[in-house]
Amino acid sequence: MNDRSSSDLAELVRRTFDAQGFLHLVGAKVEFVERGKVTLGVDRRDELLQQHGFFHGGVVALLIDNATGAAAATVQRAEGPGVLTAEYKINFVSPGVGDRLSCTAEVVKPGRRMTVVEAKVHAYSGGTAKLVAVALATIANVEVPDKL
Amino acid sequence: MNDRSSSDLAELVRRTFDAQGFLHLVGAKVEFVERGKVTLGVDRRDELLQQHGFFHGGVVALLIDNATGAAAATVQRAEGPGVLTAEYKINFVSPGVGDRLSCTAEVVKPGRRMTVVEAKVHAYSGGTAKLVAVALATIANVEVPDKL
Amino acid sequence: MNDRSSSDLAELVRRTFDAQGFLHLVGAKVEFVERGKVTLGVDRRDELLQQHGFFHGGVVALLIDNATGAAAATVQRAEGPGVLTAEYKINFVSPGVGDRLSCTAEVVKPGRRMTVVEAKVHAYSGGTAKLVAVALATIANVEVPDKL
Amino acid sequence: MNDRSSSDLAELVRRTFDAQGFLHLVGAKVEFVERGKVTLGVDRRDELLQQHGFFHGGVVALLIDNATGAAAATVQRAEGPGVLTAEYKINFVSPGVGDRLSCTAEVVKPGRRMTVVEAKVHAYSGGTAKLVAVALATIANVEVPDKL
Repeated sequence: MNDRSSSDLAELVRRTFDAQGFLHLVGAKVEFVERGKVTLGVDRRDELLQQHGFFHGGVVALLIDNATGAAAATVQRAEGPGVLTAEYKINFVSPGVGDRLSCTAEVVKPGRRMTVVEAKVHAYSGGTAKLVAVALATIANVEVPDKL
Repeated sequence: MNDRSSSDLAELVRRTFDAQGFLHLVGAKVEFVERGKVTLGVDRRDELLQQHGFFHGGVVALLIDNATGAAAATVQRAEGPGVLTAEYKINFVSPGVGDRLSCTAEVVKPGRRMTVVEAKVHAYSGGTAKLVAVALATIANVEVPDKL
Repeated sequence: MNDRSSSDLAELVRRTFDAQGFLHLVGAKVEFVERGKVTLGVDRRDELLQQHGFFHGGVVALLIDNATGAAAATVQRAEGPGVLTAEYKINFVSPGVGDRLSCTAEVVKPGRRMTVVEAKVHAYSGGTAKLVAVALATIANVEVPDKL
Repeated sequence: MNDRSSSDLAELVRRTFDAQGFLHLVGAKVEFVERGKVTLGVDRRDELLQQHGFFHGGVVALLIDNATGAAAATVQRAEGPGVLTAEYKINFVSPGVGDRLSCTAEVVKPGRRMTVVEAKVHAYSGGTAKLVAVALATIANVEVPDKL
């Protein structure tokens, strides 16, 4: 059903992300792409923090938003039209303390109309990783980018 | 139970937001504060968009993240310790097309341990408003800012 | 777009509910139907409670599940194919204490592919109503009942 | 922190479930308990179905509601006061077709105030299992059973 190679998929995800001003502003970068799985990360900068010096919840949400959408896009058919995020839910389980924040999204169930994707966000400090957030997202397959 | 005036609450919300680098980066501003209700908005800039020219979902999430947390903080007792976002769920109902994006969060039910908050995000184009997203959030009352 | 009368809609909702064994087992009944809005209720019985004598969370969820799906069905075109619940999120805000539990679901945004619905569940004791739960649901429009 | 054996935990979960009228009505049974993980299942009966002959979404929700709460209870300290479900989100990924429905809930992150739990529901037909739903739940630790 999906005849695109991993390098094609990575190229597709990078090209889509490159066209997004907000990802440039935040500085999020693609770390890993394969069919059904995408990792997106960002390095710590003062502009990404909240008042206690942790990564801002909005940065966590941004990574989840993009990584889940991109993971869903990788399981569409090559001629697939596009994806649109219908909804997601995020549980914040510990504060984002660390030098880097990274989100891995994995497709739970691809569908004709929508794809369900799980995501986990970790904060990295030196060699240790700490779970910061878990999420569950519904991504719709759409022909035109502006209609759910 | 809450003896703070509306101007005290607005001051509290603004001071908390001022200390958040990510809100400065995005340019989100407090538009309205009263007990149990906070509105937060942001003007359109290329850096806040995604590849189709709509406001990025991460910007929508950022407004929801901060507005719901702030709305919950306004219903804590004056000597209240602080709030921490436990989780939220966002439904994206139409693309964020417009000159300005604005999120109004309202407390549904304050609680001893946690406060449930609803939020709606609208995009404004000229004189018209369009619903972009709805959200439901759980905000925990905490004594220390880093433990759920 | 929707040319069915309120009595037609009520009939449609009742017929669909009649065909569901689980609604009979629980004893849930349609209380109100109009385009975009459905209320479903159930009377207190020992079989619907949990260990503290409150309505069981599963009963709350059942009402939300059916009321949100039915509300979405009422905004489909008359020749509309059917609906399937994609997902929902429930916040339980106070225990279900009372003689009767009632859920009102209202469409927030109908869509071509999916409809977003909000719901509130109240418990009634004598003349007073208490908010028990709030929910946000995504209901998919489907041609066949078993494919998302 | 948790000094209870697996058999103590299983006994605790079974005792709590035995006191819930709604679980008896539905016929849900504990299948597996260990620290941080609980499986709950139910056999197919006409009373548990919806209009297309699939397990009703409310039955799926009931299993998730109880299994996630019970999994959170197993990670509390022995003298722990009790748990109360704050919220959950369910994605329905395919219809509940089969002879038996089973939900496994696993703690993602225990916390002082609340525990985050993931759950997956499968339908079994003969020897095959099919994923029916995934869920993410927030369970609060409480001293008294009726206050969040």
